[in-house]
Amino acid sequence: MQCSPLLSSRPPLPVKAIYRPSPSVDDRTPSSMAASGPKWAQKTITLPPHKRGCHLITPKIMKEIGQDLSEFNCGLAHLFLQHTSASLTINENYDSDVRDDTETFLNKIVPEGRSAPWKHTLEGPDDMPAHIKSSMFGCALTIPITNGLLNMGTWQGIWLCEHRDAPTPRKVVVTLNGI
Amino acid sequence: MQCSPLLSSRPPLPVKAIYRPSPSVDDRTPSSMAASGPKWAQKTITLPPHKRGCHLITPKIMKEIGQDLSEFNCGLAHLFLQHTSASLTINENYDSDVRDDTETFLNKIVPEGRSAPWKHTLEGPDDMPAHIKSSMFGCALTIPITNGLLNMGTWQGIWLCEHRDAPTPRKVVVTLNGI
Amino acid sequence: MQCSPLLSSRPPLPVKAIYRPSPSVDDRTPSSMAASGPKWAQKTITLPPHKRGCHLITPKIMKEIGQDLSEFNCGLAHLFLQHTSASLTINENYDSDVRDDTETFLNKIVPEGRSAPWKHTLEGPDDMPAHIKSSMFGCALTIPITNGLLNMGTWQGIWLCEHRDAPTPRKVVVTLNGI
Repeated sequence: MQCSPLLSSRPPLPVKAIYRPSPSVDDRTPSSMAASGPKWAQKTITLPPHKRGCHLITPKIMKEIGQDLSEFNCGLAHLFLQHTSASLTINENYDSDVRDDTETFLNKIVPEGRSAPWKHTLEGPDDMPAHIKSSMFGCALTIPITNGLLNMGTWQGIWLCEHRDAPTPRKVVVTLNGI
Repeated sequence: MQCSPLLSSRPPLPVKAIYRPSPSVDDRTPSSMAASGPKWAQKTITLPPHKRGCHLITPKIMKEIGQDLSEFNCGLAHLFLQHTSASLTINENYDSDVRDDTETFLNKIVPEGRSAPWKHTLEGPDDMPAHIKSSMFGCALTIPITNGLLNMGTWQGIWLCEHRDAPTPRKVVVTLNGI
Repeated sequence: MQCSPLLSSRPPLPVKAIYRPSPSVDDRTPSSMAASGPKWAQKTITLPPHKRGCHLITPKIMKEIGQDLSEFNCGLAHLFLQHTSASLTINENYDSDVRDDTETFLNKIVPEGRSAPWKHTLEGPDDMPAHIKSSMFGCALTIPITNGLLNMGTWQGIWLCEHRDAPTPRKVVVTLNGI
């Protein structure tokens, strides 16, 4: 098994907030060995309100973490949505019909309104279905990092699925770990 | 990106079973640099039998790993349920109706009994539905660690969903990794 | 919390492509301290085409990563399927009826053909259902590593669920991290 070696031609990037565990590693040393120490980085991103439905957010995520990602040659990126009425999933990144159809499916599979058997209705008819959808797709993703990029397939993208009618900002804790 | 720095006022805690990779790190040294090395910890927790349905287990989990968590300023906690007829998910931590309604949903979506089309019925009518529900919600969670705590949202909690009729103890392998 | 200590009787294995972050660690030194440094390994596996349905792939995965796994005493294995019309899940590893029944469930829950409400139909009637199933089960797994092995439960196995009618090779990025 292998990770691609460090590119020796890469210029030394400024690394301020990325933890380097070893006391002996000097951030100012642009050697490949220094850069290959295990690193942790963590950041909370606030996504702007999105309307109910599935949304491709890869560009938004990359804008927030792209520079930090470039510090990792091999590792894992973890995205954790701090909410129980929305979800994160990985799916098709090209045709928006796929996102619309997925929203159609979720609404079909989880009853809402008068026909729904829910006890938890205090926060509106869309609230309990939102909780269920959140557990169906999950609130977290772990994606491999390879050569400074998220190593997803050609057609994969990161989706935020907003399950509430009222759009609200959503927080995502991103944790990067690797070498 | 950043992790909050080590609190220098924190008293040096005894660390016995947490691995420190660097040979030069001395567990007895209460310096922040020593404490910032990458650490791994792993533990198998046995959850007591829970009746069929969804259960909030955040307090149980925290009782088991809270002290170990406090050693990590930035990292990831991984919970892995070693079973195929129960699941772990993150959802609302306040109103037990949400958990009841989620169980209602699971039973509605996965047929059970005479109307069900399952071939695998040897272990009882609730067994095959339990397997399906296990894959729907999944058997594992990864949660960010920040400043010695699980960095979940205000309303998020860890649920054990028991899908079998007969309550049995359930094992969870917890792996902590961070700095 | 603990990870089992390194077996001092284990012969020094050749480690070529596994990253060792510390510059002071010498791969040729068969000491337990050297072997206990944090390691990362990453590999892309190509699974051969599987027909539509759920398939137990634990043996295939172990054949590909078993030797690398043996280098880790404590850690996490991450499997990431680079596709949006198939999924990875953990479920029962013994009775193939469980896999057949799960496929039956997925086909029952996600409409296909003339009765289906999908807009995205250009790539065939099985395509949009495949995308939905992929998000239901997910494209990634994280499994604890303990003593050089995947620490799954007795009855757990890794499944590849192929949701398209036409079998194609599927790529899985495996990332190992631990000590």
